[in-house]
Amino acid sequence: MAQKGDLMTVRSDIRVVDATLRDGGLVNNFEFTDEFVNALYRANVKAGVDYMEFGYKASKELFDVNKFGKWKFCNEEDIRAVVGDNNSDMKIAVMADVGRTDYETDIVDRSDSVIDLIRVATYIHQMPTAIRMVEDAKKKGYEVSCNIMAVSKAKESDLAQALEMLGNSPVDVIYLVDSYGSLVPEQVRRLSEQYLEVGEKYGKQIGIHAHNNQQLAFANTIEALSNGVSYLDATMNGMGRGCGNCSMELLLSFLKNPQYNVYPIFRFLQNQILPLRESGVVWGYDIPYLLTGKLNQHPRAAIEAVKQGRTDYAEFYTELLENE
Amino acid sequence: MAQKGDLMTVRSDIRVVDATLRDGGLVNNFEFTDEFVNALYRANVKAGVDYMEFGYKASKELFDVNKFGKWKFCNEEDIRAVVGDNNSDMKIAVMADVGRTDYETDIVDRSDSVIDLIRVATYIHQMPTAIRMVEDAKKKGYEVSCNIMAVSKAKESDLAQALEMLGNSPVDVIYLVDSYGSLVPEQVRRLSEQYLEVGEKYGKQIGIHAHNNQQLAFANTIEALSNGVSYLDATMNGMGRGCGNCSMELLLSFLKNPQYNVYPIFRFLQNQILPLRESGVVWGYDIPYLLTGKLNQHPRAAIEAVKQGRTDYAEFYTELLENE
Repeated sequence: MAQKGDLMTVRSDIRVVDATLRDGGLVNNFEFTDEFVNALYRANVKAGVDYMEFGYKASKELFDVNKFGKWKFCNEEDIRAVVGDNNSDMKIAVMADVGRTDYETDIVDRSDSVIDLIRVATYIHQMPTAIRMVEDAKKKGYEVSCNIMAVSKAKESDLAQALEMLGNSPVDVIYLVDSYGSLVPEQVRRLSEQYLEVGEKYGKQIGIHAHNNQQLAFANTIEALSNGVSYLDATMNGMGRGCGNCSMELLLSFLKNPQYNVYPIFRFLQNQILPLRESGVVWGYDIPYLLTGKLNQHPRAAIEAVKQGRTDYAEFYTELLENE
Repeated sequence: MAQKGDLMTVRSDIRVVDATLRDGGLVNNFEFTDEFVNALYRANVKAGVDYMEFGYKASKELFDVNKFGKWKFCNEEDIRAVVGDNNSDMKIAVMADVGRTDYETDIVDRSDSVIDLIRVATYIHQMPTAIRMVEDAKKKGYEVSCNIMAVSKAKESDLAQALEMLGNSPVDVIYLVDSYGSLVPEQVRRLSEQYLEVGEKYGKQIGIHAHNNQQLAFANTIEALSNGVSYLDATMNGMGRGCGNCSMELLLSFLKNPQYNVYPIFRFLQNQILPLRESGVVWGYDIPYLLTGKLNQHPRAAIEAVKQGRTDYAEFYTELLENE
């Protein structure tokens, strides 16, 4: 597949998606201050970011609202308290997890909502439910993406079938998601080509969501971009589960479209992200995450190791190998 | 140029070069403890690293030996105090800077030295002196590389001429060096191809030395690798000037050759690198370095900003733009 675009020109199909509250919320239990969220919204609008994801639409049957910050649930009134009617060029997104969202009741008609994009997150064995959720959201009037998580664990034949199912669904965007931070650019290139072939066949856009276990989140994102992927997830200073994501400041420094302006991002980093880090919220590259990424494992053991302050990397590596 | 090798097999031309003491020495004024250096040597030998660079052969006329740690000068007896006669499969390297090395006197015949590889570091406008140093080291019996620094600043026509000069010299390895951490993988691919064409024409190996300003040091290293570059620089936990280099733990986790074993590296990180960081030695990705990298500038302003603890990123960015 030929390279799309080059380092000097711009591509009109690119969409930058800020996922700070959603993936970053996994680090601090979604307990962001209102000041942080308001500043994030304003920074994203000023920076020309295309979508801001506010969090999850998690089921209140399954999750106790008193045990999480409000962005795990993304009530309509909570989003409106920040964005009003969102009189900006930036669109609003939320994530709906297969099996953890009461989508039939909690996702209302788009005409009654300030939300624009529903991001359905699924593991590959949950595809039939994901397709039903895509259809439901589409019928209600939303833009819809489907994010197939942990693709580094999927068999090629299962992935091919899942992509065909999505091609035949009303979904707008199909996401390549490296949940474990296990992929290297060469693999991202091959996977991107597979997703893009389906996208071209069925008229779908392709997106990427990367993790930084091997310091490759930004590299994998621009590798996918150069192959033709359009929707690019990033978070402020890479805030996200474990080692975090593709950093917004890196991505906007790279993109050449004059729509994007990285300056408000730097202001946000100095005014909001630094104090958040100083308050003890921890994310970013660390050896335990490298190890789960390298071994293509869920980061939960690494998250626990970092939480415990473990620095016996060699022993931790041995434990991971024993649990393979 | 076709991809060389793949993610499952090994390439016999690969050489891993540990540059921790040399590039890391720029962070702590080369003041490593003997314990650190001994442990590093043992870890590298156990890990199957091919070359260990001990530091610079800096001129004692130009630099006061009392103002730097000993690895800025790499006296023969100081290296031998660590490696003895180096009865290992790993080779010993030192760097010789054009204009800052008394190479005629300070580099002795290889038969009298435990050093195997002289790495001549040059800016592109110093090529005639670099060639003379290459010839001198080669005549004395060494393996010799030439590292053209700050290639992101070089004009294409100058670079083409410099590569031809090196092709016609007795140098063994020509290095692509991204001193400012400014290159993205797409540029590394194009530059690698240019270096490799000269390498194939004249029978030279090609190497890469990357910096992590944009979190791309590892990505750029494996991009070059997949194009056919053989000599790969890395440092422990990325220790190096400013934001540092390609991390040894990432590179050895990626390479598939059973010669390499990342386990001793993790032991070294926990026993030596963590205490070094805790003692106040600072390196790694930070916004000021991203900014100089993005602007293709020398990192000195960023190093100064980080030293001063500046976190007014937006203002710092403005200052850099004014000094362009």
